[in-house]
Amino acid sequence: MSRIVILGLGTAGFAAILAAKKTDRTAEITVIDDKPYDLMHPCGLPYAVEGVIDTFDKLKHPLNLERMNVDHRHPWRVAAIDPEKQLVTAAPVSGGEPENIPYGKLLVCTGARPFTPPIPGLESAMGRGAFTVSTPEDACALQAAAQPGMHAVCLGAGAIGLETAVALRRKGLDVTVVEMLPHVMPRALDADMSALLKEHLESLGVRVLCGQGIEEVLGGDNALDAVRIQGEEYPCDLLVVAAGVRANLEAAAAAGVATGKTGILINDRLETSIPNIYAAGDCVQTRSLIDGRDFTLQLSTTAYRQGTVAGTNAAGGNAAYPGVTGAFVSKIGDLQVAAVGYTLEFAKAMGYDPLFGKIKDTTLYDWYPGGQPLSVKVIADKATGKVLGAQAVGESGAASRVNVVSTALSVGLDLAALSGLEFAYCPAVSQAYDPLTKAVDLALRKMR
Amino acid sequence: MSRIVILGLGTAGFAAILAAKKTDRTAEITVIDDKPYDLMHPCGLPYAVEGVIDTFDKLKHPLNLERMNVDHRHPWRVAAIDPEKQLVTAAPVSGGEPENIPYGKLLVCTGARPFTPPIPGLESAMGRGAFTVSTPEDACALQAAAQPGMHAVCLGAGAIGLETAVALRRKGLDVTVVEMLPHVMPRALDADMSALLKEHLESLGVRVLCGQGIEEVLGGDNALDAVRIQGEEYPCDLLVVAAGVRANLEAAAAAGVATGKTGILINDRLETSIPNIYAAGDCVQTRSLIDGRDFTLQLSTTAYRQGTVAGTNAAGGNAAYPGVTGAFVSKIGDLQVAAVGYTLEFAKAMGYDPLFGKIKDTTLYDWYPGGQPLSVKVIADKATGKVLGAQAVGESGAASRVNVVSTALSVGLDLAALSGLEFAYCPAVSQAYDPLTKAVDLALRKMR
Repeated sequence: MSRIVILGLGTAGFAAILAAKKTDRTAEITVIDDKPYDLMHPCGLPYAVEGVIDTFDKLKHPLNLERMNVDHRHPWRVAAIDPEKQLVTAAPVSGGEPENIPYGKLLVCTGARPFTPPIPGLESAMGRGAFTVSTPEDACALQAAAQPGMHAVCLGAGAIGLETAVALRRKGLDVTVVEMLPHVMPRALDADMSALLKEHLESLGVRVLCGQGIEEVLGGDNALDAVRIQGEEYPCDLLVVAAGVRANLEAAAAAGVATGKTGILINDRLETSIPNIYAAGDCVQTRSLIDGRDFTLQLSTTAYRQGTVAGTNAAGGNAAYPGVTGAFVSKIGDLQVAAVGYTLEFAKAMGYDPLFGKIKDTTLYDWYPGGQPLSVKVIADKATGKVLGAQAVGESGAASRVNVVSTALSVGLDLAALSGLEFAYCPAVSQAYDPLTKAVDLALRKMR
Repeated sequence: MSRIVILGLGTAGFAAILAAKKTDRTAEITVIDDKPYDLMHPCGLPYAVEGVIDTFDKLKHPLNLERMNVDHRHPWRVAAIDPEKQLVTAAPVSGGEPENIPYGKLLVCTGARPFTPPIPGLESAMGRGAFTVSTPEDACALQAAAQPGMHAVCLGAGAIGLETAVALRRKGLDVTVVEMLPHVMPRALDADMSALLKEHLESLGVRVLCGQGIEEVLGGDNALDAVRIQGEEYPCDLLVVAAGVRANLEAAAAAGVATGKTGILINDRLETSIPNIYAAGDCVQTRSLIDGRDFTLQLSTTAYRQGTVAGTNAAGGNAAYPGVTGAFVSKIGDLQVAAVGYTLEFAKAMGYDPLFGKIKDTTLYDWYPGGQPLSVKVIADKATGKVLGAQAVGESGAASRVNVVSTALSVGLDLAALSGLEFAYCPAVSQAYDPLTKAVDLALRKMR
């Protein structure tokens, strides 16, 4: 019988419970989590701010852990891990005696928290005009504070920042996005594809400032006044902090678990450096399936797979996690923005000599009504033709092209093989010569 | 310099022209075709009958072949091929002296024609109440004949038959579909998935009779009266014949080119049994990428790829066609019906011991508005876990799942690998745990 303790009930922790129970029905599982509810869907938060999802409660997902015979300590907080004695010390958030909980296997699924950049005035503004979008509580506070006509500034142009920017714009606020890097969605998109997204944001009335940072947050005791960007003051009643996340790895690190630049180090069984301690989800540092390089993507989908592998192994099974392709999509306004693998820029930075094929096409033929613009870019290694990544932007069909390339990346296909793939065609659904194949063929031409 | 003659200007012939010109810019190309226009999109015809595409002319695609320096003889008809002298004899459809056209390489891209089953009364009813849907001319005649309130019968429940049945129903006709086999879409779907489609057809008011055939077509000189099915007479003013297609292989066969059960035999360079004669598209017999078995799918997408390979090789290049996965989609009413590879029933008939996983799910989480039902079925070989096929039915997202499985089939993935694939997630676009992965995981359970 396995005696498993899981720290954190996010996607990874939940997947670990399911997998452990599937592997060993008799597994004794304790999960320690600091939320007053069960699972939560963080990716839904910006859409709840917008009102597309009508209450934040819908994002809280009751799991019926009692019926699964899982000991759920919550809201509890972990104080320490003792790897020698195989004990976790934890206590209720509300106070009370800490308890020592023994483990046979420990799973660290502690997730990540929003990063608050060291900007003068920001720390003290948190909660009084400045908000993150990482829990129903903070997103709900943001929504309550957001009034039509207000000036909102979103710090960070990743998925959460842009989804929230559009949400606030649609609620009638004046919205400015500020991004330090030279273009929006800088991790997922190259500058050229990013330009399509910027154009869409501007068409929705969102102001976009790239290559610029907030130098200071200005305000009185109970409200914000402005932010200073490049020496200029912008009025700001509401500040959304969406500047990325940091792994919650302190408890594990304090116990001696080895960590890397972006998270807890793991092998392909999701074991950490300390025997009987596993880690999964947003708190770990992962590798790319493309070439084994460090490539950390804190996504729900990767957390789910990692939790499954860690839970299986902790319960005595044998599963491997080969790494991530990084399949990603965000719906920003009316656009699906999807990407997988490396951007051209990242591939260059990693030492590749990459090439790309790019097409601005439509989902349907021009003779069939209802087709929508779809832009697809495919990146490959010039020397070998090996596919390295793809990006797609359009009202529909972007994610589905990226999913095909994710499949291709997972088996190391080259451009020629990707070009030869058969896709389903019906004029009401697709074109016979798919935009993805066209982009691949344009890349292939550069190989010659 | 290559001297290439192409018989037939369909998708395969067109793709062959493009590929040959790309391979050898100096290639001298003659294409002989019996249509008075250039390319045509047959898959659009049922939607033009319905009126979604507003004129049949939109399905005629001018190619500007003169600018490409292609000698386009049309409307011309081929009388004979002389493989010894490497000559094609052809003449204008309107009459006139036959001409001998020499070739260095001959590409047979003659396509397929609708099959007219040997039903008493059918032959003489063609054109006077009975129509096929394979050219703008016959589809336009069908549309002109179709009046609200009429009784229409569609013979055959494949894509063309069902798309046309819905088109006529939406134009206000009373519509009955008759299918010899036990369920609709019998080549693409198993009975269980087919039932979802039947239900949808019935919800649109289309009557569906399966496992039954038309025994006789009854009518006077200028109109139909009825069809007899299982001894019972059904009123019938309009009969749509959509009972599949037959390869146009007569000219090639007469010249001694070897043919199989479903078409011209080809190797993986798309060479026929006679030197310097290639064949591609609906007139050839293809093999499955899964296991090399005979597996003929007369699809536009496969025709395009075959034409590309044949054209490349005919012009002195070197391309291979490894076979088909059979990725397929049809939009029938509001449903995408998609499939790839083998059905469970076909896999059994081929000697496999197959298993499947099936899920009735939705495209989005229940907490995000706008999700649509999506059913996915995945078929695999029990002994090895190797994926054999998939089927998906839903208002959206069916084709995209099938495209992923098509990619998987092309590299021989097993269920475990397919389960491990990463797909892009955003609650406005997808679920983190995709319906396809769920179906795969259900299949995996049966492996244990």
